[in-house]
Amino acid sequence: MEKSRLEKQFDFCLEIDKEKFIGRQTYLSDGKRKENDAEHAWHMAIMAYLLREYANEEVDIARVMLMCLIHDLVEIDAGDTYAYDDEGKKTQKERENRAKERIFSLLPDEQKDELTALFDEFEECGTAEARFARAMDNLQPLILNHSNGGSDWKEHGVSAADVYGRQEKTRLGSEKLFEVTDQIIRENIRKGNLPEK
Amino acid sequence: MEKSRLEKQFDFCLEIDKEKFIGRQTYLSDGKRKENDAEHAWHMAIMAYLLREYANEEVDIARVMLMCLIHDLVEIDAGDTYAYDDEGKKTQKERENRAKERIFSLLPDEQKDELTALFDEFEECGTAEARFARAMDNLQPLILNHSNGGSDWKEHGVSAADVYGRQEKTRLGSEKLFEVTDQIIRENIRKGNLPEK
Repeated sequence: MEKSRLEKQFDFCLEIDKEKFIGRQTYLSDGKRKENDAEHAWHMAIMAYLLREYANEEVDIARVMLMCLIHDLVEIDAGDTYAYDDEGKKTQKERENRAKERIFSLLPDEQKDELTALFDEFEECGTAEARFARAMDNLQPLILNHSNGGSDWKEHGVSAADVYGRQEKTRLGSEKLFEVTDQIIRENIRKGNLPEK
Repeated sequence: MEKSRLEKQFDFCLEIDKEKFIGRQTYLSDGKRKENDAEHAWHMAIMAYLLREYANEEVDIARVMLMCLIHDLVEIDAGDTYAYDDEGKKTQKERENRAKERIFSLLPDEQKDELTALFDEFEECGTAEARFARAMDNLQPLILNHSNGGSDWKEHGVSAADVYGRQEKTRLGSEKLFEVTDQIIRENIRKGNLPEK
């Protein structure tokens, strides 16, 4: 028997609990443990709201927040691919596409389509909302790394050049926040938390 | 020297990382560990978006989501007061008021005022948005308890009468979701996860 609309929505609402099991490489501000995807997404969504005045273009902030909240759901199946893991990145797209299909298919069709489109929009980075959400995706771990002496960077031998590479996307969303990002990176080079290359 | 607007915003964005340290009593769906406030807030915000069609009144869903995301920030200082902790509840308001003043004061004045008002709105439960957000605050731990055999309820000797008491607020936000809540509670009584009284 076909599940009811509400049953489908509840199935999805329970399924996404698993995002809390997906670990990231970023240490929290106390440096004691690494955060998970759900914590990261929550943090990004609030930051997006509070920093929206710095977006390069006008954004629909509700869409940005929702994009922040759901942008990592595929990692429930596909796992987190570390920003500087070049091997993992080769299979990332395929793993995430399979996950996207399975997880969003739990929802009623039109909600599946809506969330899939929003997820794709974030990935493609072709709209003002996606660009600003991507800036948050980069800025959030940066402020944590900055707060705890670059624990994640040190653990993985990440260089300032690597961080600049990733933070190019921040600039597309916010020139102003890229300026701050640049200052933070320079400060961490000076402090010895990030080698230049 | 007075901090710049952006410095204040960054201070706040870093401070809220501490919400991830604040443990709740609800076990995740795998029953292995309890969730924290940030995970709970993230989960509620997505649920609010997906279930908004069941709100008793029309809601501004962006405000509901933001309310969900920030409603526990005061617990960074005040700690989590368990829903069924009658002793803790006696001092909860005072502890949370002090926390609210300290934490939101990190922000530029108008953002402090905005978030304080939104926090108070959630607490006072006097608007459609607050009522729906409160329904999410109750429904989210309920579906987790339901998924893991009522681990939290069993650990604390919570009864169905206790759960119904708390879930009265769900009804104010959504009659439809209260119906489902009622079914879930009855099922957990039958399964022996919740004594009636």
